[in-house]
Amino acid sequence: MKIKILLLLLTTIISFGFSFAQAQQTTIIEDFKPSSLNQPQQEYPMVNSQGYARFKIIAPAADSVRVSLGLGGRGGTKLEKASDGSWMGTTEGPMDEGFHYYNVKIDGGKFNDPGAMNYYGSIRWESGIEIPAHDQDFYTLKNVPHGHVQQVLFPSPSTNTSRRAFVYTPPGYEMGKEKYPVLYLQHGWGEDETAWMNQGHANLIMDNLITEGKIKPFIIVNTYGMTNEVKYGRIRDFKIEAFQTVLIDELIPYIDAHFRTIAKQTHRAMAGLSMGGMETKTITLNKPEVFSYYALLSGGTYAPTDIKDKSKVKLIFLSCGSRERPEGVIKAVEALKEANFNAVSYISDKTGHEFQTWRRSLYELAPLLFK
Amino acid sequence: MKIKILLLLLTTIISFGFSFAQAQQTTIIEDFKPSSLNQPQQEYPMVNSQGYARFKIIAPAADSVRVSLGLGGRGGTKLEKASDGSWMGTTEGPMDEGFHYYNVKIDGGKFNDPGAMNYYGSIRWESGIEIPAHDQDFYTLKNVPHGHVQQVLFPSPSTNTSRRAFVYTPPGYEMGKEKYPVLYLQHGWGEDETAWMNQGHANLIMDNLITEGKIKPFIIVNTYGMTNEVKYGRIRDFKIEAFQTVLIDELIPYIDAHFRTIAKQTHRAMAGLSMGGMETKTITLNKPEVFSYYALLSGGTYAPTDIKDKSKVKLIFLSCGSRERPEGVIKAVEALKEANFNAVSYISDKTGHEFQTWRRSLYELAPLLFK
Repeated sequence: MKIKILLLLLTTIISFGFSFAQAQQTTIIEDFKPSSLNQPQQEYPMVNSQGYARFKIIAPAADSVRVSLGLGGRGGTKLEKASDGSWMGTTEGPMDEGFHYYNVKIDGGKFNDPGAMNYYGSIRWESGIEIPAHDQDFYTLKNVPHGHVQQVLFPSPSTNTSRRAFVYTPPGYEMGKEKYPVLYLQHGWGEDETAWMNQGHANLIMDNLITEGKIKPFIIVNTYGMTNEVKYGRIRDFKIEAFQTVLIDELIPYIDAHFRTIAKQTHRAMAGLSMGGMETKTITLNKPEVFSYYALLSGGTYAPTDIKDKSKVKLIFLSCGSRERPEGVIKAVEALKEANFNAVSYISDKTGHEFQTWRRSLYELAPLLFK
Repeated sequence: MKIKILLLLLTTIISFGFSFAQAQQTTIIEDFKPSSLNQPQQEYPMVNSQGYARFKIIAPAADSVRVSLGLGGRGGTKLEKASDGSWMGTTEGPMDEGFHYYNVKIDGGKFNDPGAMNYYGSIRWESGIEIPAHDQDFYTLKNVPHGHVQQVLFPSPSTNTSRRAFVYTPPGYEMGKEKYPVLYLQHGWGEDETAWMNQGHANLIMDNLITEGKIKPFIIVNTYGMTNEVKYGRIRDFKIEAFQTVLIDELIPYIDAHFRTIAKQTHRAMAGLSMGGMETKTITLNKPEVFSYYALLSGGTYAPTDIKDKSKVKLIFLSCGSRERPEGVIKAVEALKEANFNAVSYISDKTGHEFQTWRRSLYELAPLLFK
């Protein structure tokens, strides 16, 4: 089982960034607008209503400019030199909805698009682009009460430094007295503790869910999962111990001492995407006395036999994109249900191993937590 | 007077990034280490104990690679192609201590160094490099209690959106009951609300000052000063009204409603660097009922005649780098003192219009506030 998860993770990581909705040539509608993730005052990259992306890079003396987004096997999108000395190009087909990482190859070197903002993925700050999604309303910034996202530096004797975490507190937390349950939510390989708020809009998803009365407010904590020492294809070499110590012995006590939490196993959840799911599975099984809600987002599955004491588990949530391996998630949840676990599966339609899958997964998971 | 400040700002902005300690050729000591602002696992850029910076850019097929840091008039540092296909180069002389923005010109296009982290300046996310400073202890991350930095999204009816601010709360704030005074601290032209925490390490400066008992703890608030619609040389076209409305009518009421502040003129300070100083001067003079402590960091001066009601002003703090125009700051403070203002000048030794000047200025200013 463990090997299977590792292989799943490896496969999905290698396909990272190359998820095209369709490759056929269609008529491109010329309604391109700047991507919502552009740097201030930057027109390019642009996206159109079909999901095509168009790039423009200024490098008049370059010989070759290529954007990593595009059809996987064919090395992305090759830009052509325009008459003004810039390089321009449009993806061969529409992209999947949501967030994509990318970079730009210029004369053999890997750089970022100066028009786009940067997001931490693949162990580097990458360019980001947003393909408008039909369901983007749930993570849109609206005129509603907003929770705060706090950067905390917590002492970590085991790593001999202060480590960073981000803590989402629900609207009104700061002047209230109520205590809240906590979700510890992990990023994937190549990412860090900035991913869930920056790429994932976890704070806006929560603000909107809370405003609509769809969830009981809770706190979210993101920290770095120490995953990035592991190179492609060597995930089986990853050892959980260092991160488990940071999370269980250092971060959770800090959060419980500095925030108004309900500091109990019954009010604590752990979730993670991709390699963060692998971490979640390992730590929830190692430490059943710490968490009672478990969620793996494109990050493997639990089998009924994995869990020693069923009475300690309130929910198992498994999800992935429809372009990943939904049958694995669906079958695992069926088996868990047969064994009388409270298990839920969610398949994100027409998305792959990317953040749109995980934004939607959080949106589906949040109402199921801390009931 | 106003024209003079505008000219000062223009001059200093144009010289931005080109402040060399000395240009003479000396023997370069080969003790280069990765800059502390590099992306994870990145070796380059490197800095040595003398303040030289060394760059390495991978772009095997490029014709020309140049780093913007270096001697102003000569267009920075030209990299040379090394035998492994990379481009390498070392600054012609040592750099000033502290933080510098830079970018990389590759075949005529402006990109960032893939080895360095990015910082918002010049209306773009720029590469950043840190030249170790003899006095870096005061902004070093230490094993001391750390305040939190909260990202808040506050409603702004005047601009019809939710705007972002960062709020530093002192260690222990989150579980305490005490109320605190507030410093509203502005970035410069080309920057945004991320500058003071990212480039300035304002949170670490405060953590260390508080731990050493050198200051009474207070809250710091950073928001975007709406300065960046103004291009080089057109700063006189800047209108303060839109930002003044956001700050006075929207942000301050939000902060006072959501944080435990002492919501009084006597416990509120405003400070700003460069164009943020110009904003500070204008707003403190327009709204003497809101702030009682004023500080301009490389951002102009006050004359005694600028101020209508002397009794409302508790402190005027003026600073700049020794490579700027210290005589203007010193003379202004002399005139203010003669007119019986509590005025203090600070000149940062051997620094220019850059963040090391402003880190030091905050360190000097903080103990004078809210006495």
